[in-house]
Amino acid sequence: MANPTAAMLVIGDEILSGRTRDSNMYFLAQQLTQAGIDLTEVRVVSDDQDAIVSAVKALSAGFTHVFTSGGIGPTHDDITADCIAKAFDASIDVRDDARALLEAHYKRTGGELNVARLRMARIPEGATLIENPVSVAPGFTLENVHVMAGVPEVFEAMVASVLPQLTGGSPLLSQSLRVMRGEGEIAAFLSDLATSHPDLSIGCYPFHKDGVFGANVVVRGADGAQVDAAMTKLVTEYGT
Amino acid sequence: MANPTAAMLVIGDEILSGRTRDSNMYFLAQQLTQAGIDLTEVRVVSDDQDAIVSAVKALSAGFTHVFTSGGIGPTHDDITADCIAKAFDASIDVRDDARALLEAHYKRTGGELNVARLRMARIPEGATLIENPVSVAPGFTLENVHVMAGVPEVFEAMVASVLPQLTGGSPLLSQSLRVMRGEGEIAAFLSDLATSHPDLSIGCYPFHKDGVFGANVVVRGADGAQVDAAMTKLVTEYGT
Repeated sequence: MANPTAAMLVIGDEILSGRTRDSNMYFLAQQLTQAGIDLTEVRVVSDDQDAIVSAVKALSAGFTHVFTSGGIGPTHDDITADCIAKAFDASIDVRDDARALLEAHYKRTGGELNVARLRMARIPEGATLIENPVSVAPGFTLENVHVMAGVPEVFEAMVASVLPQLTGGSPLLSQSLRVMRGEGEIAAFLSDLATSHPDLSIGCYPFHKDGVFGANVVVRGADGAQVDAAMTKLVTEYGT
Repeated sequence: MANPTAAMLVIGDEILSGRTRDSNMYFLAQQLTQAGIDLTEVRVVSDDQDAIVSAVKALSAGFTHVFTSGGIGPTHDDITADCIAKAFDASIDVRDDARALLEAHYKRTGGELNVARLRMARIPEGATLIENPVSVAPGFTLENVHVMAGVPEVFEAMVASVLPQLTGGSPLLSQSLRVMRGEGEIAAFLSDLATSHPDLSIGCYPFHKDGVFGANVVVRGADGAQVDAAMTKLVTEYGT
């Protein structure tokens, strides 16, 4: 049987202007090859409604899966979610489950869930959320289109969330902990943790914002008991 | 007046499979931004005739300029030139001027212009050649489509050949010399040469093939007398 096919749609003026070098295409290409899915076409379009809607329609009709990258953040030019809704004639609004994720996140981190950030809870009707263990604001799947963030660490984490569901592999469970230390300080502990749990994937996503350093540590695996065990060690060492 | 628009078409299975990370898109995006041309869409397709032809038709109709990358080498899966011809209903065959370039190159370097390499002289009827100062085999422009190699050094050199013609700037003249020394050995001389000719661009494209090291040094500029002067110094130092 032939492999399923896939297309990718990269959305963002910053790629087309050369300000940013895209890395998500290269990452996704490798992941799909490993998963036995044939990436057959990639398009890069600007933050333009007509361009996004027409590319989504063409790619969704032509391939088994479509993966999008970019345009789901809090600013006015983040129009991807609205464009996906338009492409499928779906309504879109702030959705309670997505809003609850953001509320819990900003409560924990002391940020404010303002109007701009609330945009990230706009989800088309009928979509399924894609987990974002790095920065919480979710992606979503509508029909055969998987909508993910452009920031590479978030994009990569979302691909890890969605891909096992497409290939029929065991769904991965994940838990995360926000550690307020520099990555170099916790690297040795994480390396030992990975060695003692070879069936788990331990990801470390550093951040630096407003003078504060930290990292989101994400533990993933098919076996919930193992994920729990590793998280317990992590919380014992770094939990507040 | 609005800027002219451009699209890029990247052709190659190696990009879509994740074996190779594309760098030509990032390079072209930066160059076009500097030149005041708006890169508006990029597509990446595999080495598949239908995919290439239909992308070329769509992009050629939609944008002022189209730049392609990849698929003009000597192997059986290098089908870009034939696809471009098909897209524009042009005939295609080995063309005398392109063949002459290759013959001179292989005579100089001691290689054989075999049947496979002769494929690189297949040029659609009505096309204009794009100079390749790095490895000689030319690209070409047909209608508003500029067809260039996928190897990054060659792609970049071809962009430098074609871009000034599109922006109405002075056309750049270029001359090149093949120097059979390692890049590190000639770097200081080239640096001095660049300093004493600030209006010229001095490019150095190292190669390593069959145990032989060398570099193609390319001198470019709008003023032919300056290019000649720099080339004379170069030949005096390194000419054989």
